[in-house]
Amino acid sequence: MAKTGSYRPMRVLSGMRPSGKLHLGHFHGVLENWLKLQETCECYFFVADWHALTTEYENPGGLKKNILDMAADWLSVGIDPSRSVIFRQSEIKEHAELHVLLSMLTPLAWLERNPTYKEQLEEVRDRELHTYGFLGYPVLQTSDIIIYRAGKVPVGIDQAPHLELAREITRRFNYLYGETFPEPQTILTQSPKVLGVDGRKMSKSYDNAIYLSDPPEVIEKKMLTMMTDPARKRRTDPGNPGICPVYVTFHTLYSNEPVKEWVRRGCESAGIGCIECKKSVIPEVVKRLTPVREKREGFLKDPDRVSSILKKGGEKAREAAMETMLDVRKALSLD
Amino acid sequence: MAKTGSYRPMRVLSGMRPSGKLHLGHFHGVLENWLKLQETCECYFFVADWHALTTEYENPGGLKKNILDMAADWLSVGIDPSRSVIFRQSEIKEHAELHVLLSMLTPLAWLERNPTYKEQLEEVRDRELHTYGFLGYPVLQTSDIIIYRAGKVPVGIDQAPHLELAREITRRFNYLYGETFPEPQTILTQSPKVLGVDGRKMSKSYDNAIYLSDPPEVIEKKMLTMMTDPARKRRTDPGNPGICPVYVTFHTLYSNEPVKEWVRRGCESAGIGCIECKKSVIPEVVKRLTPVREKREGFLKDPDRVSSILKKGGEKAREAAMETMLDVRKALSLD
Repeated sequence: MAKTGSYRPMRVLSGMRPSGKLHLGHFHGVLENWLKLQETCECYFFVADWHALTTEYENPGGLKKNILDMAADWLSVGIDPSRSVIFRQSEIKEHAELHVLLSMLTPLAWLERNPTYKEQLEEVRDRELHTYGFLGYPVLQTSDIIIYRAGKVPVGIDQAPHLELAREITRRFNYLYGETFPEPQTILTQSPKVLGVDGRKMSKSYDNAIYLSDPPEVIEKKMLTMMTDPARKRRTDPGNPGICPVYVTFHTLYSNEPVKEWVRRGCESAGIGCIECKKSVIPEVVKRLTPVREKREGFLKDPDRVSSILKKGGEKAREAAMETMLDVRKALSLD
Repeated sequence: MAKTGSYRPMRVLSGMRPSGKLHLGHFHGVLENWLKLQETCECYFFVADWHALTTEYENPGGLKKNILDMAADWLSVGIDPSRSVIFRQSEIKEHAELHVLLSMLTPLAWLERNPTYKEQLEEVRDRELHTYGFLGYPVLQTSDIIIYRAGKVPVGIDQAPHLELAREITRRFNYLYGETFPEPQTILTQSPKVLGVDGRKMSKSYDNAIYLSDPPEVIEKKMLTMMTDPARKRRTDPGNPGICPVYVTFHTLYSNEPVKEWVRRGCESAGIGCIECKKSVIPEVVKRLTPVREKREGFLKDPDRVSSILKKGGEKAREAAMETMLDVRKALSLD
């Protein structure tokens, strides 16, 4: 069967909205996982620039720089254009074509009931999100995914409902027009807890992030002023590493077992102070980020190289998308 | 200014959903107007095949034949591919791209409040229209129109609210991203009243239509059994031409003044019978439709010729659409 033949069980599809330069939350939460997938799968990683407009449509001016920054980050951590297809969503008009077609068969109620949609409408107060495009976000996302007939889509637990919606829309398409798309399968990604310098989840909007582009002195400064166990007010108070953001995020991710044990004991017994504790991990963070930052600077000095990588990836992606759309148009008598 | 330069005040944009072969309602209501516009304007006429899916998505099987039938009708009445750009919407992916972008800035409430939308949801009971695409119909329509920067859009009075919505969306785009599109201007089209053989508005769904493809014997049979003034029960009853569908539609459109006067007098005085009245106009209808039907048969014998006309038109349309999209992407920092 042609359909089974064109299904790519080892093809992985994942994207990220270009919100600017990336921080350790992105690195440990997403990119490290991409790096692993890249070893064994055929990966398609895309810059979701149209999706960025669902929330940034009133102010798209920074988009171009954000795209460049994000792509440079991807490349600098080791996402490799010779192994993975890296491209911009907006380069592949077929995503928009399939989006129009999927919109016809997607019941409004499925979108209105989407829990993420309702939550965001309530939470986001600084911009107007009651738009047609924001409601249809999952339809565009479904198109992004299934147009590559990808077998696997890595998602965090919070995005799982979106994927479920994508699977429902896919089933409805296949039911109406015959088996055309494989149902995308979720790879549930276990992400470490990456906390920012104020102890909340690391996020650009909280202004608490350590960026892949931060030079050593900035990393050091941010970490030295980072929040620790709030109950440990004095140097002589014993602390609880289990609730200390420095331990939970940084020692967990960057320290070896002996250091971690030294920290736990020292903290719990008030044997070491917070500064001492931080100073034992800062060099590890700097060591990990320095080669990334250096590669990044190289890419930013030569933005045409980044653009050309995205363009070449776009050509490969377009080929795959066009192949799918031939079948889609036939299924809908639009060929 | 580049913007003013690319505005085409004499460019006309109009489309039709491919619902199959056309009848006299389409001919007198739309096509005759197109033929006039074609004399003096740069016309873009498109087959709205994506739009057809807003209501036909559950059953798109007939779409291909419907497109061919409709395009053959256009060409047979004299829509001239050497003067006008005739194309299929689905060939121009840029319509879908602009649709995605417009969707981001279109408030949901504008669409939900659209009177046509609410009416149709109530009226149409034989299919499920509570879909994302049906709600967004006016967004796709706006994209169809403004991507050609057309100065004029001919619409009937019933579609005027849709055009108003298109103008609002256009203004919002220009406000957010700078003057990019001219606001489309409505040419309000005065359509004659075209009644079907049962006296209701001529419509495929009422099964009361005379088609451009009907051969003389079918036209004659349909018209001879056509409803007349219902109050004129016997040949000896006087009739009222003002409420007789044969007079209101057929004599008005096909008879000259002396014949009309003869009918009016004869009907009002019971001097002539309904059959006699009908027989005086049937030959005129046949005369008008015969060359159309003959040309039509030629086109249907050679469907590749029709496809190739649509393809060539598509190339011209795409060129214009791509030119616009360069400006659109720049305005949105997506270039």
